[in-house]
Amino acid sequence: MSLDDKAVKPHDRLAQALAGDMEAVNALIREKMASKHAPRIPEVTAHLVEAGGKRLRPMLTLAAARICGYNGPYHVHLAATVEFIHTATLLHDDVVDESAQRRGRPTANLLWDNKSSVLVGDYLFARAFQLMTEPDNMRVLGILSNASAVIAEGEVLQLTAAQDLSTTEDTYLQVIRGKTAALFSAATQVGGVLAEADETAEKALFDYGDALGIAFQMVDDLLDYGGVTDVIGKNTGDDFRERKLTLPVIKAVAAADQTERAFWSRVIEKGDQQDGDLEQAMALMAKHGTLAATRDAAILWADQARAALSALPAHPLRDMLDDLADYVVARVR
Amino acid sequence: MSLDDKAVKPHDRLAQALAGDMEAVNALIREKMASKHAPRIPEVTAHLVEAGGKRLRPMLTLAAARICGYNGPYHVHLAATVEFIHTATLLHDDVVDESAQRRGRPTANLLWDNKSSVLVGDYLFARAFQLMTEPDNMRVLGILSNASAVIAEGEVLQLTAAQDLSTTEDTYLQVIRGKTAALFSAATQVGGVLAEADETAEKALFDYGDALGIAFQMVDDLLDYGGVTDVIGKNTGDDFRERKLTLPVIKAVAAADQTERAFWSRVIEKGDQQDGDLEQAMALMAKHGTLAATRDAAILWADQARAALSALPAHPLRDMLDDLADYVVARVR
Repeated sequence: MSLDDKAVKPHDRLAQALAGDMEAVNALIREKMASKHAPRIPEVTAHLVEAGGKRLRPMLTLAAARICGYNGPYHVHLAATVEFIHTATLLHDDVVDESAQRRGRPTANLLWDNKSSVLVGDYLFARAFQLMTEPDNMRVLGILSNASAVIAEGEVLQLTAAQDLSTTEDTYLQVIRGKTAALFSAATQVGGVLAEADETAEKALFDYGDALGIAFQMVDDLLDYGGVTDVIGKNTGDDFRERKLTLPVIKAVAAADQTERAFWSRVIEKGDQQDGDLEQAMALMAKHGTLAATRDAAILWADQARAALSALPAHPLRDMLDDLADYVVARVR
Repeated sequence: MSLDDKAVKPHDRLAQALAGDMEAVNALIREKMASKHAPRIPEVTAHLVEAGGKRLRPMLTLAAARICGYNGPYHVHLAATVEFIHTATLLHDDVVDESAQRRGRPTANLLWDNKSSVLVGDYLFARAFQLMTEPDNMRVLGILSNASAVIAEGEVLQLTAAQDLSTTEDTYLQVIRGKTAALFSAATQVGGVLAEADETAEKALFDYGDALGIAFQMVDDLLDYGGVTDVIGKNTGDDFRERKLTLPVIKAVAAADQTERAFWSRVIEKGDQQDGDLEQAMALMAKHGTLAATRDAAILWADQARAALSALPAHPLRDMLDDLADYVVARVR
């Protein structure tokens, strides 16, 4: 398959194949984000939900359930749960990161205030927990509530690891497993649990979501530096300015000589950043090949995601998940 | 019973009667707030949990379960759940209110940062949801997840009602039912559900918690203006400065003549506050008797709380809950 074929299609093919289910998910999301008493809630939520995220996570749940033969109605509730948890974390992330833009629009904390973002996020978390009780399945509840704790833990870990040059690749993996992969793997796993998939299939679904989430976040962190092409674009360097220790930087710090280490210490640890520092950081990452190395690591995880799928029953949606893993890293190949 | 007898005893008597259970609750709280990967979490949580809140809400759950004859272990999990939800909302409230002090100590958002307060709060919410799945009881899950949504909704409603002079007593009741009473009533109700209490007893427990929570918050709002004694103390006027429409102000606005209304509009709606304005506000509340009227409303709710208890089986803990309702308003009698 050529790169062009993969550049846009897997996600759209998934959306097409799951169109009926996704319609039900979107209707449920609209219903549950309503609030009789506090109209600020649907205002804020609609701003974010209707900004057109890709709805990747709910589609993972729907696909997992369908591949394992599920025919009941509750994959819709769990897909909406997963999207609510995701949206709540976005609202809180924007407060934490003091972001001004999300999905090309001003963030809720900018349009309203931090208070609204915190409290509406809490409301969506609570709604997510209400929704996840609907299938009356205790294992599903355990998986999703555990994922919520792991997500928050990952975010706190990222907060304390920021600005710390001694952050290792292990810590980085821990952070992105928490902040990103935990929801991907929970999304796929609960689809299987709902369908009463056997242990092997359930583990395969978890492994797929876990590896896909890790690849996804590595690519995201790479694109924050413009990808391997090493060209500064308009959104390049947000992580650099926030002094986040992502994989390209961790690898560059590990390979640094004394002068380079002093540079990293100044810009990341001390936060003393001047004009030209981002260019210098990218030159050092290019010199040590850390952007390419990050891309290669992401490809390995995408390959692991695809390998996990082989334990699942043959299904057109399984093939789309396979293509999706490929597509996630195709952006930076 | 004289006021002196009641001034400190009901809460302490409850704590004594429930000492064994509360020890188990505290051990569970310590265990569940630990985090292998993110030591910031127990740091922040311990700061708040060990600052010595009264643990009123978990004691309500324990007492409700015991009164209805519960003998299993899970009232401890639900009591810890309730305290975690409460602690999470405190962390987020302090971010929302930009508070500097809580329980006589600097707030977490001041000691660490808003980011930590938001994310550690999220972690505690997630832990609460994990804990509430332990009894394997779907009705308990429904009640507690619903309460979490109502709490967030109440907080958002308070945010949008702030600075709005047209806020009615109905809206105020809605706000405090959400932000305070919802957790009280859920705390008592789930104790009964766990004990498989009959419908009448369960409703009585809900009604007690609901009315107690409302009385509790009314007294809190009254004490923010120094109580009915109309004396400015060191903590007087926080709500005034934050331009919150609490009951004493709502009643004063309703009784205001044209000049007074202009005053309220300037200090609350426009937020243009000068030296002497708090004194002027308190003089207007005294003139219209709104502090005494707020106290009387709180006493009526406390009486309702006590009346609800009569549908419960006779039990020493029931008598302590009766005294507790009396004590909550005794602070301002």
